Amino acid sequence: MWSTGLPREAVAHRAELSRTRANAAVASLMEQGLLEQAGPQASTGGRRAETLRLARTLGVVLAVDLGATGLDVAVLTPDLRILERHAEAMDVRRGPGLVLSRVRALLRELLARCGATPRQVLAIGLGVPGPVDFDHAQLVAPPLMPEWDGFSIRDDLRADYAAPVFVDNDVNLMALGELWRLQRSLKNFVVIKVGTGIGCGIVCQGQVYRGVNGSAGDVGHICVDPQGPRCHCGNLGCVEAMAAGPAIARMATEAAQAGKSPMLAQLLDERGVLTPADVAQASRAGDAASNAIVQRAGALIGQMLASVVNFFNPSHVFIGGGVTRTGPLFLASVRQSIYHRSLALSTRHLEIQYTPLGDEAGVVGAGALALQQAMLQGATA
Amino acid sequence: MWSTGLPREAVAHRAELSRTRANAAVASLMEQGLLEQAGPQASTGGRRAETLRLARTLGVVLAVDLGATGLDVAVLTPDLRILERHAEAMDVRRGPGLVLSRVRALLRELLARCGATPRQVLAIGLGVPGPVDFDHAQLVAPPLMPEWDGFSIRDDLRADYAAPVFVDNDVNLMALGELWRLQRSLKNFVVIKVGTGIGCGIVCQGQVYRGVNGSAGDVGHICVDPQGPRCHCGNLGCVEAMAAGPAIARMATEAAQAGKSPMLAQLLDERGVLTPADVAQASRAGDAASNAIVQRAGALIGQMLASVVNFFNPSHVFIGGGVTRTGPLFLASVRQSIYHRSLALSTRHLEIQYTPLGDEAGVVGAGALALQQAMLQGATA
Repeated sequence: MWSTGLPREAVAHRAELSRTRANAAVASLMEQGLLEQAGPQASTGGRRAETLRLARTLGVVLAVDLGATGLDVAVLTPDLRILERHAEAMDVRRGPGLVLSRVRALLRELLARCGATPRQVLAIGLGVPGPVDFDHAQLVAPPLMPEWDGFSIRDDLRADYAAPVFVDNDVNLMALGELWRLQRSLKNFVVIKVGTGIGCGIVCQGQVYRGVNGSAGDVGHICVDPQGPRCHCGNLGCVEAMAAGPAIARMATEAAQAGKSPMLAQLLDERGVLTPADVAQASRAGDAASNAIVQRAGALIGQMLASVVNFFNPSHVFIGGGVTRTGPLFLASVRQSIYHRSLALSTRHLEIQYTPLGDEAGVVGAGALALQQAMLQGATA
Repeated sequence: MWSTGLPREAVAHRAELSRTRANAAVASLMEQGLLEQAGPQASTGGRRAETLRLARTLGVVLAVDLGATGLDVAVLTPDLRILERHAEAMDVRRGPGLVLSRVRALLRELLARCGATPRQVLAIGLGVPGPVDFDHAQLVAPPLMPEWDGFSIRDDLRADYAAPVFVDNDVNLMALGELWRLQRSLKNFVVIKVGTGIGCGIVCQGQVYRGVNGSAGDVGHICVDPQGPRCHCGNLGCVEAMAAGPAIARMATEAAQAGKSPMLAQLLDERGVLTPADVAQASRAGDAASNAIVQRAGALIGQMLASVVNFFNPSHVFIGGGVTRTGPLFLASVRQSIYHRSLALSTRHLEIQYTPLGDEAGVVGAGALALQQAMLQGATA
């Protein structure tokens, strides 16, 4: 696993150097304070292997994953191990001023807990749930958070940090995080996030693909039923309007009110509203109406993903976002729907699974963006 | 335009050489017989510019574009100018033996007309209407032409030619042809072919993208209506089953039999069957029922393309295949449907048009494949 360092033996192999030259190079990098020993690896019976990693003294990376209904903030090592992390509920529609002042307070607190100072921050990465003008680190007409349109996130964070700030769409960052975790061993895959909205990160030929206007992967408004309900975008039957978090909550409320689920009815009584998390909980507890809702959402998302698979023929579809907490039933429904609607050749070796990085995919991806872009800037400066 | 050669002045600029060094390089290449003068360009008032091109004596490239219902064969110069070309109707389901023996006879005839011999053939490119195992130059379980499954096209053509043979999906080749024509100035676009089936060629980050199993762009079985008719693939409401050539012919026959179109009824009476070409002709002549069929097919294909545009965010959608002969009404319907169903950011700069290479896109693409792959083989040999 990339985040725990690299055995010394592997260095020569990876760098295509002789062992003698590799040892000399490692010694030089350790003398310069760029590499350090992470302690021996677990014994495999023979001589204990030493593990090398980027030196912790190099500095830290800050990562922020803004969702529509929550924020997730972390301090990471330069090899993207999480040192401190904090997640809390937050409505991004409260606007950039309020949300970012909370983000900055949390970053200060986490940095202090690590014993690090703002000057030790190497780079900052932010994921946001909307279309991004990547060069200007700004959101462009984001449907879920209109108050953020054109706001300079970079300028806001510059008040606290001299480090460079990079912003990208949250799902692109999940894709980048998985690409990093996999050490770029997969070349063509997609990451789908199902939360308040539905978005898709695309890795094509080993790179995150953003499209001509940065809006690639905007799959939430793919039509899955021309006779479906009207979406906030104005069209009928968008998958987001029929299967994302708010649609799941709406179906749950209807089931509770129609007397189809005593479990959901009781939760509705207690709290006044139902959330996708309630449906997930009830489904795991065996509630038939909740299972039907989960299966319906999974089937519709799978139908949309079948279009993606037919068009893009990826090796993997990774599914992330709040919906993953629903458990295996949702994943099984998505799988069934994709296999049913895609061509045999496209699905012969296709893997469909929840994101291996789990709920860390967002901050790890934001950290990977920050490091990657800071190094690119350094290389061209 | 790339196929008419390059003005001598442009050589220094393109190769990033001084004019003196560029002139020396050109003189050397002409001495070796690799470049030749194509004669002066049209005068622009000043000194007449000389135009350079790859020497015709280098050899020729053979290109074959197999469609479901026709074949198109050409001999091209090494800079992909068509020297001789012949197209005729052919049912590919008659099997590889019969079809390829006709292809080989036509290639012999066209070569003779050019005054060239089989030994002067540099490379051979073939496009086929189905999924291709690119490395083995074979079709893999092609739904439109099952008899070709696993047949070695390469071995068949080796009987006549020592030149290397390359096979790819016909729509990938249309994409490659456009990439070549555009001198790689566009990085991310799609080419959609609407004929007996519906397929899509994808250019991503400046390269034709084939997907993990070579089946990328298989958009014909994207669902546009969950309540639609059953497709030969077994699913309901595939865009191919509702809007490709056979569906257009079926709608036309129904309109004629229901008395909705005297023009189509007369054509049906005369010939016993109706083809998409009949609908195109009647539509251009103002027949209301034919216009409705064209608009319905365009709207459904546009709905599928809206999914592609939302996911891939390309700069251009080029439309080719027999349907382009229908004229502007079909294109207008596709456009309207894409703009209606795609997000504003994705369509802000999107261009939707018929393939600029027109009905030459297939053979030019096959020629481009042959040259490109032969040069890659040469480079690694």
